[in-house]
Amino acid sequence: MEKFSERSRHVTSSATREIMKVTERPEVISFAGGLPAPELFPIEEMKVACEAVLSESGEQALQYSTTEGYLPLRQDIVSRLEAIGIHATTDHILMTTGSQQGLDLTGKLFLDNEDTVICESPTYLAAIQAFSVYNPNFVEVPMDEDGMLMDELERALQAYPDAKFIYTIPDFQNPTGRTLSLKRRKKMIALANQFDVVIVEDNPYGAVRFAGEALPPVKSLDTEGRVVYISTFSKIFSPGLRLGWICADQVFIDKYVMFKQAADLHTDSFAQRITAKYIELFDLEAHIEDIRTVYLSRRQKMIDCIKSYFPKQVKHSSPEGGLFLWVELPESVDTQEIFEECLKRHVAFVPGNAFYPGRVKNNTFRLNYSNMPEEKIVEGMKRLGAVLTTAVNSSTVQSSRE
Amino acid sequence: MEKFSERSRHVTSSATREIMKVTERPEVISFAGGLPAPELFPIEEMKVACEAVLSESGEQALQYSTTEGYLPLRQDIVSRLEAIGIHATTDHILMTTGSQQGLDLTGKLFLDNEDTVICESPTYLAAIQAFSVYNPNFVEVPMDEDGMLMDELERALQAYPDAKFIYTIPDFQNPTGRTLSLKRRKKMIALANQFDVVIVEDNPYGAVRFAGEALPPVKSLDTEGRVVYISTFSKIFSPGLRLGWICADQVFIDKYVMFKQAADLHTDSFAQRITAKYIELFDLEAHIEDIRTVYLSRRQKMIDCIKSYFPKQVKHSSPEGGLFLWVELPESVDTQEIFEECLKRHVAFVPGNAFYPGRVKNNTFRLNYSNMPEEKIVEGMKRLGAVLTTAVNSSTVQSSRE
Repeated sequence: MEKFSERSRHVTSSATREIMKVTERPEVISFAGGLPAPELFPIEEMKVACEAVLSESGEQALQYSTTEGYLPLRQDIVSRLEAIGIHATTDHILMTTGSQQGLDLTGKLFLDNEDTVICESPTYLAAIQAFSVYNPNFVEVPMDEDGMLMDELERALQAYPDAKFIYTIPDFQNPTGRTLSLKRRKKMIALANQFDVVIVEDNPYGAVRFAGEALPPVKSLDTEGRVVYISTFSKIFSPGLRLGWICADQVFIDKYVMFKQAADLHTDSFAQRITAKYIELFDLEAHIEDIRTVYLSRRQKMIDCIKSYFPKQVKHSSPEGGLFLWVELPESVDTQEIFEECLKRHVAFVPGNAFYPGRVKNNTFRLNYSNMPEEKIVEGMKRLGAVLTTAVNSSTVQSSRE
Repeated sequence: MEKFSERSRHVTSSATREIMKVTERPEVISFAGGLPAPELFPIEEMKVACEAVLSESGEQALQYSTTEGYLPLRQDIVSRLEAIGIHATTDHILMTTGSQQGLDLTGKLFLDNEDTVICESPTYLAAIQAFSVYNPNFVEVPMDEDGMLMDELERALQAYPDAKFIYTIPDFQNPTGRTLSLKRRKKMIALANQFDVVIVEDNPYGAVRFAGEALPPVKSLDTEGRVVYISTFSKIFSPGLRLGWICADQVFIDKYVMFKQAADLHTDSFAQRITAKYIELFDLEAHIEDIRTVYLSRRQKMIDCIKSYFPKQVKHSSPEGGLFLWVELPESVDTQEIFEECLKRHVAFVPGNAFYPGRVKNNTFRLNYSNMPEEKIVEGMKRLGAVLTTAVNSSTVQSSRE
């Protein structure tokens, strides 16, 4: 009876999804998720915003609204973008149901069967999932500490001149926490222009920079209107409300709006209005500054713990913002195997292979530092360090025997 | 530069969408939209629910949550379904971003390029839009006042035995307001079993029955687990919150969950919790009873006006629930042309051709009675009647000349 579509065979439950279920047990110290620190959510302020919206415009807030999104909120977004060098009008902004929907709509808008998507290796696993629905050919471009390697990108574009888009997370990339250097941003734009390809800039973390100097978004360097910029309120306000947005030229937005309408008519009216009301009545910038302070401290604690408890052969990234650290072990170590051992000790991470669309790389994993208080970070990293030390030692012994 | 997907050519902005923009002008009396009566939204109760959710579980309400949806809300839905003869557990319920997302996910799950969808003729235009993204072949089955004609459905199934699903809105169909008879519901299940085809039952209006006797949902007659039931809080609570759900057997839900996760991770946590809190603290059934009372009265007023102001050649449906009336004019009249004339007089409807996926039928239109107070219904119907009278008279003169 189940006459499912071809594409239903390409979509599998995300590895993290299954992992999350295990790691949600209260006894587990989880560095697996990508969750913001919930104790920072502005709950009292939200009460005020809800009361104000329902009193002032309850009928509109609970009614159907436009596909494009609530105009005052789109104006707020335009202002925020202006501050980071992206010049847009509200016509260039489409509200989405989280930035995840921005990814799904991007797949819908661009990808036919087996079309090429060029992406960082590793890359965001839910983007892999979103695009996989449209069955593309992922071409992975290796990275170093400064992000995607531009000579490798050029080679990829030469090999796949019909690539539909380059997917990049330039700021504090998920999963690596790495940031694309300014020089490479400029080179990426130049290559996109040369090969006439669209860039999809996924930037959920850019505002959460807690160290170093801000770099201009790739979109702000765009001279030909070829960058689609996707972002969200999830990391600076509340992920539960599912409020993301796409900023792009009119020719893109017109199409995105049609797909958005077909997908869910419009984004939650009430969520949009209470967020706009919060921005009107309170200080979102001050709130983000609080987030930065806490995340900086947690990242530092985690790096200190790596130095104290992890074996010396372990490499790690040093993010200047965002939510994630990336850990690389000797090649002989399989982090999927370690994961099972860690779960027994009630500590969790995401094994790296989930972040590679094609080839599997088994000796990496992702750590989240935003969601756990520092004492739990210390305790969890101690447990993790003990497992890693055993694994690295035994693998060293093994490989010296081989 | 715009290397869009093939599917982006199949998706066009909905006719209503463009119509809505015009009809949103405050001077226009609009029977075009499908909006609930906003003055019935339980705004004061929502204030209480928001305050309670933020006080009791603010951190969870603003955080990421599970793809399947908030368990207590899914339990509420299970109870509501039980009351109408559908036996499900929470494992059979997936929360969606409005029932529109249920339609999009259904397209994703079932439809490959040029697969057949069997539907009522006319049918819900946003379903046409949602499925069109996946480029199906729509096979339209004619209706009478008792809904889809079963001998015509059988012929369609014989002609297209590989059809992926039958899409039906059995209760107070959009756009016609017609209800599928019990005999035909049983026959539809029998035919689906015989031809081994899935039924997608879209039932957003079933709870808003204000006359006649309730009929069992098609899903309640399902003996082989082949009915996917899609519904929503939009017509009984608030459409702005975008809360819909899918109820289906595990084999379907497992796949739907994966597509849902890829599409937007999960449905707004806060919206789900305030809705569950409203149901916990207040009386949703009493609220729906209020909606029924008001809609019955508005529908009656509209039918009275048809009798008073419309030319005698006009036929109309007599819905026992839901939001819409369907009007059929003599075949020589083009409602698209009349629409322009009506707009000049500041009254609007949706011309019927938007509701036919394939062939265009020009002498029909849809009227919404839920969104306008009675005095505006009377005034709008007078204006509409004047235009129709002129059009029908001149078309009669014309056709007698031809």
